[in-house]
Amino acid sequence: MLVLGGLTCFDYLNKKTNWKKMKLLIFAFFGGAHLLSLCSGKAIYKNGISKRTFQEMKEEIASYGDVAKAIINLAVYGKAQNRSYERLALLVDTVGPRLSGSKNLEKAIQIMYQNLQQDGLENVHLEPVRIPHWERGEESAVMLEPRIHKIAILGLGSSIGTPPEGITAEVLVVTSFDELQRRASEARGKIVVYNQPYINYSRTVQYRTQGAVEAAKVGAVASLIRSVASLSIYSPHTGIQEYQDGVPKIPTACITVEDAEMMSRMASRGIKIVIQLKMGAKTYPDTDSFNTVAEITGSKYPEQVVLVSGHLDSWDVGQGAMDDGGGAFISWEALSLIKDLGLRPKRTLRLVLWTAEEQGGVGAFQYYQLHKVNISNYSLVMESDTGTFLPTGLQFTGSEKARAIMEEVMSLLQPLNITQVLSHGEGTDINFWIQAGVPGASLLDDLYKYFFFHHSHGDTMTVMDPKQMNVAAAVWAVVSYVVADMEEMLPRS
Amino acid sequence: MLVLGGLTCFDYLNKKTNWKKMKLLIFAFFGGAHLLSLCSGKAIYKNGISKRTFQEMKEEIASYGDVAKAIINLAVYGKAQNRSYERLALLVDTVGPRLSGSKNLEKAIQIMYQNLQQDGLENVHLEPVRIPHWERGEESAVMLEPRIHKIAILGLGSSIGTPPEGITAEVLVVTSFDELQRRASEARGKIVVYNQPYINYSRTVQYRTQGAVEAAKVGAVASLIRSVASLSIYSPHTGIQEYQDGVPKIPTACITVEDAEMMSRMASRGIKIVIQLKMGAKTYPDTDSFNTVAEITGSKYPEQVVLVSGHLDSWDVGQGAMDDGGGAFISWEALSLIKDLGLRPKRTLRLVLWTAEEQGGVGAFQYYQLHKVNISNYSLVMESDTGTFLPTGLQFTGSEKARAIMEEVMSLLQPLNITQVLSHGEGTDINFWIQAGVPGASLLDDLYKYFFFHHSHGDTMTVMDPKQMNVAAAVWAVVSYVVADMEEMLPRS
Ligand SMILES: [Zn+2]
Ligand SMILES: [Zn+2]
Repeated sequence: MLVLGGLTCFDYLNKKTNWKKMKLLIFAFFGGAHLLSLCSGKAIYKNGISKRTFQEMKEEIASYGDVAKAIINLAVYGKAQNRSYERLALLVDTVGPRLSGSKNLEKAIQIMYQNLQQDGLENVHLEPVRIPHWERGEESAVMLEPRIHKIAILGLGSSIGTPPEGITAEVLVVTSFDELQRRASEARGKIVVYNQPYINYSRTVQYRTQGAVEAAKVGAVASLIRSVASLSIYSPHTGIQEYQDGVPKIPTACITVEDAEMMSRMASRGIKIVIQLKMGAKTYPDTDSFNTVAEITGSKYPEQVVLVSGHLDSWDVGQGAMDDGGGAFISWEALSLIKDLGLRPKRTLRLVLWTAEEQGGVGAFQYYQLHKVNISNYSLVMESDTGTFLPTGLQFTGSEKARAIMEEVMSLLQPLNITQVLSHGEGTDINFWIQAGVPGASLLDDLYKYFFFHHSHGDTMTVMDPKQMNVAAAVWAVVSYVVADMEEMLPRS
Repeated sequence: MLVLGGLTCFDYLNKKTNWKKMKLLIFAFFGGAHLLSLCSGKAIYKNGISKRTFQEMKEEIASYGDVAKAIINLAVYGKAQNRSYERLALLVDTVGPRLSGSKNLEKAIQIMYQNLQQDGLENVHLEPVRIPHWERGEESAVMLEPRIHKIAILGLGSSIGTPPEGITAEVLVVTSFDELQRRASEARGKIVVYNQPYINYSRTVQYRTQGAVEAAKVGAVASLIRSVASLSIYSPHTGIQEYQDGVPKIPTACITVEDAEMMSRMASRGIKIVIQLKMGAKTYPDTDSFNTVAEITGSKYPEQVVLVSGHLDSWDVGQGAMDDGGGAFISWEALSLIKDLGLRPKRTLRLVLWTAEEQGGVGAFQYYQLHKVNISNYSLVMESDTGTFLPTGLQFTGSEKARAIMEEVMSLLQPLNITQVLSHGEGTDINFWIQAGVPGASLLDDLYKYFFFHHSHGDTMTVMDPKQMNVAAAVWAVVSYVVADMEEMLPRS
């Protein structure tokens, strides 16, 4: 513990390259006992930062109070209000959904390239990425027994299609992988229907991602998965699924909560269910796409970076307004607000609009591969990808010292009463950096409705609230600007 | 006021045919001043009923406390719990939706006839009714400009279809009838899209019922109406619409809130929108159907009736589980509960499952025409047609005296904390009776989610909660039994 604490502390001192570091070193030299206490995290220290340094940090951050208020005023009450909403509406109404590999996505990227240039941002450019190209094609499902009933489906991303005549088979309904195992002998030749209860997204989504593989392992010919959604108005909710080497690929689609529950009731009454499933889904060769980048170049440490981001791709239904148009556009708005106020932080503020996130963070992974050589220059990576509803703060992953700093930064948002700093800052597109030790933050917002609309035809501008986007953009701008402008980078573990 | 009060009071006395009436008359004769006070509604009277009579009434109703508890125990905690839910699920899973004129509806009526007989109810029979037969056929809408976008629609009930090649026309988006009038000169040859805000169902539904007529009056070739819904996950919500003599009939359908808002945004940007609408909707000759009736015959006044009801028909989407499977099945359950407890009220308790409510109370109107000759024998008409979510009481229309009695009856539901008696007991299927002076009651329940699912593919068993149905059935059974068993009919105005 002590050694670890000492190392952490030492790392921290090592990263200081300025006058404050010298002061601390002098202090350490003449105050060895105090340094030992500092490194062992005793009472006089908060979160492992020395009182003095912490106090200085607090003062430095507090000095941004007026800047924070200016950002808030511009975003929430001033002439920039509703801008991110209006910009987003124009893009998604014009282009529609933006699936990886689609013409829509590439059109959106070209529009965004122009938008960012016209906005006067710097170093606007596109970074080439190879991304998956899957299309659902025509698809349909009909219950033939016990009665004719048209079943709403959405094929799952990466699924194979059926033969043109479809797959017609009896249904086996299960409510869990455990039940599927217990009833494995009944599954051969059947369409497995999963009617798993919705617990929460992260626990329940395994049925969407792994349902086809588990069904195929026991001989099923297709699988239909109850949509992973917290509310349904007969809405299918798609998403990526994953095949496994050595396991036969079978077609797989999501169905509505309503139909999954109905078939579960029918099966529990001993009723035979037969479904005809037709899916034209097909995977094409990988295609060219781009991560879209724009910057406000740092005035003092231009090589150092605070990265703000969201993903521009979406599923091929709805408008991809919530997932993740909102995140992408409050990230753009953060830079716009800062530019509008004539601010230029010491470090470079970099906007990245990821491509092909929905296919597994494809654009972000290639970005990381290309840029990780400069990882020591990344102070903070930020992503908004769980909605831009009313924010309550940030989720953050990083050292305790960095967390203490983030808490101070968030206190600048006291005028909006948005000051929480919770754990788990991870997000698909920034995880590579976070796992490599870079502090990472995600927007923390009111998730209540998020999984009503997620990956469905209902992910449109109707879900979005311009006032909530204003507030989210203000949070995003204050955090990214202050962290980019502070004298020191965020300390790592 | 006094005369009116006196008349009311006199009517009330006139309707008393028993010893209590005599007592009151004697009291009146010897206490003229008191009677005057009674009739003018002075302090010693509650709601126009004399203290003494009211006190007796209170005592009579209070004597049903044990019966009410027995009903509640059986319905909510005992072996009948979840029965109405299970029965409903079996019907709607087996039959599906039950549109007026469809084979499904007639199948459901035949099944219910058998169900009610098997349940041991009395005088189970079907009363013939002629009902409308409209079918939507195949239908689709595609936005051709500014970009290709498949628009979810549901043709509105009674709409005509389009020619087979569809109607392709430019769109005029309006947000109100006022705006349509102001822009009447722009409407000719166009498809009018209504993007009216959702205020509440009763205020907003005029756009669905009258939208086509108003659009046709200014020369539109079709109209698309934003669904009247309080939440949307890209869900169209259908319903009846009404043509008007002398106004050309144009095809009309509902669209989603999402698409209405998107087209409104596009139009406000000056973007030209073109839609191709295809509807195979067709009205066929009226067809045979039935109101489904069952009873527990009264022991003392079998010719007198308390009527409990819901409608068995639905729209042709979803399962019609909420609208109005729930209302129909808690009404059946009320009789089942009373029968299971070996109770037989003095008056006849009559269950009616209406047909073709959604086409404008067609079955109920014909029932009224046939039975109104006996209107003086109807003590109370009850309908549940706004969901069977958690009830909080009743909505009631009737004289102040009847209301005072209903308040006492509802106090029997104190164990469930469901005691409210609000105004507006009206419902489509019981309005004819109420307008003719019969007291009427509707179930008052938590409407929060009702218009999420109303008339959409999402009206399925997934919406229904067995525990809430248990409670609703208990309320329904207690009220109908006690009113049917009290010594006197409910007083009318
Ligand atoms: Zn996302
Ligand atoms: Zn109804």
